[in-house]
Amino acid sequence: MSDVKEILGSYSVDVIETIKDNLSTITPKALQEASVYLTKAGGKMIRPCLTLISTKAVGGKKESSLNSAAAIELIHTFSLIHDDIMDDDDIRRGMPAVHKVWDDDVAILSGDTLFSKAFLMISQSVSSDVSYEQINKVLSTVADACLYICEGQALDIEFEGCYDVSEDEYLDMVFKKTAALIAASTKAGAIIGGASDEIVDVMYEYGRLIGLAFQIQDDYLDLVSDEESLGKPIGSDIAKGKMTLIVVKSLFEASDEDREILLKILKDDDSSNEDIGVVLDLFDKYDSLEYARKVAQDNVDKAKQLLKILPDSESKIALEKIADFVLERHS
Amino acid sequence: MSDVKEILGSYSVDVIETIKDNLSTITPKALQEASVYLTKAGGKMIRPCLTLISTKAVGGKKESSLNSAAAIELIHTFSLIHDDIMDDDDIRRGMPAVHKVWDDDVAILSGDTLFSKAFLMISQSVSSDVSYEQINKVLSTVADACLYICEGQALDIEFEGCYDVSEDEYLDMVFKKTAALIAASTKAGAIIGGASDEIVDVMYEYGRLIGLAFQIQDDYLDLVSDEESLGKPIGSDIAKGKMTLIVVKSLFEASDEDREILLKILKDDDSSNEDIGVVLDLFDKYDSLEYARKVAQDNVDKAKQLLKILPDSESKIALEKIADFVLERHS
Repeated sequence: MSDVKEILGSYSVDVIETIKDNLSTITPKALQEASVYLTKAGGKMIRPCLTLISTKAVGGKKESSLNSAAAIELIHTFSLIHDDIMDDDDIRRGMPAVHKVWDDDVAILSGDTLFSKAFLMISQSVSSDVSYEQINKVLSTVADACLYICEGQALDIEFEGCYDVSEDEYLDMVFKKTAALIAASTKAGAIIGGASDEIVDVMYEYGRLIGLAFQIQDDYLDLVSDEESLGKPIGSDIAKGKMTLIVVKSLFEASDEDREILLKILKDDDSSNEDIGVVLDLFDKYDSLEYARKVAQDNVDKAKQLLKILPDSESKIALEKIADFVLERHS
Repeated sequence: MSDVKEILGSYSVDVIETIKDNLSTITPKALQEASVYLTKAGGKMIRPCLTLISTKAVGGKKESSLNSAAAIELIHTFSLIHDDIMDDDDIRRGMPAVHKVWDDDVAILSGDTLFSKAFLMISQSVSSDVSYEQINKVLSTVADACLYICEGQALDIEFEGCYDVSEDEYLDMVFKKTAALIAASTKAGAIIGGASDEIVDVMYEYGRLIGLAFQIQDDYLDLVSDEESLGKPIGSDIAKGKMTLIVVKSLFEASDEDREILLKILKDDDSSNEDIGVVLDLFDKYDSLEYARKVAQDNVDKAKQLLKILPDSESKIALEKIADFVLERHS
């Protein structure tokens, strides 16, 4: 796993530099500072790294997709900034959220700025190696993912406090909110690397599958990690009544009596540690954690299976390792 | 002038239909409703019409730029929705603003949705008549304008309550906030119509000049229109202490004593009608209204002059009329 962190670290260097260069021209100074802020907070940069590695894995040069990779990270950052306003989350990447350091207005505007800049950067990525047609496909792919992000966030808000969501509905929301941009990252990389339509589609599916696994693992970690590596209390999702695959599965499997107990605690804004213990026991009773792990593992296995279409290379191995990393990470 | 309204009306029909079609696929329903809401409130649609007319004026077919024109209207709508949250404006196009009908969260999200959709629509506008290269240039042009809109809004917020802004600084803000997207509209139309680089640049400059005049006229109407056609009380900008070219000019020309009187009233949140009368007298004393009218008229004259590069056509005449309309309109 430290191996994967090294891989991500080595690819991130250029992404960070590209983001820095592109945001340096934003004026006035206050808008620039708010726009740059979260990009300097050291996220995992998994999306832009996936773009660069995907380009290499299909035979392209990673320099060709650097602008698009950096742009996708900006899109991710934009969505975090706006989501934090909507979800009233105060902490992001261990730092006060943009809307807390400044205010909602500045957060709206800096998100919009990153969004605009991202599309500008992609549109300016045509080069001797990358055609107008390729960049056009990347733009469609990314814009499509942005639309999914908005729809996913709307569904997430709609699902709040509503516990009769089916597993399919839940996974559709996770696809839109999280997996779509990861899928766009790998697809964009493949397009720029000059892959065939078949391989481009495979790379999208690879990204979609690990994207779904990524979110399921996030929800799993909230229950089984330790407080220190997670940076927040264990079971905080239960306390907040957040919908996860584990919750969906438990509610589906539970007896009427257990279902009632579960719903009561999930809907309670002041769940005690004891309440959280009760919920964890119910998750256990209905094997929901195990079920969620299995769904995530199946996705990762399928994703790795798909990679067999690629010629052997270091980048292919990196993509396999990243798929495993999604479920091995502790934070 | 009714002539221009007819022209805009005739071009708008297809734009409205295209917007309707493209927004019909948004899910969930609540997000779709909030995203569609303001597009149905009947704006002037001057931007998309300028795109279509510009395409025709350089020899292209208006069908070729229909998607891009509709997308530009969506970008305009997105910026209105987000601006209304930031400026806490409750009324837009005679209707309650999106953040009032729903809430800030839905308004943020529906703005983001329109933004995403707009870029998707432009990227999908390649056809037998329009190349990937042309669409790429349109995308850069529009993304560039979006960035300006954000920067302009940031400057506008920064200028609030700060009355030592120079005329150049003020006009730079107006260019970014208002004129940049109008310039992008005419430029995009020219690009899609297959115009030479020289003509594309001229069309951008035409849009920039009438865009500046448009904003100056807006500020002028606030002082000289009648309440009914304006839909808000006369002098409301003075009451709100809004910075306009008329204010900038008055503050620059005024004696120390008059400057103090002006600033006191502008900074007062509860200006009486009498106060507004005092300010209007000072505007008069320093010929500021006349000055602003002259700047706007000069821009319109220059814009019309630029059109001479185009071959004679109905569309060219329409562009000339729209330039005049910017200063002739009463609302």
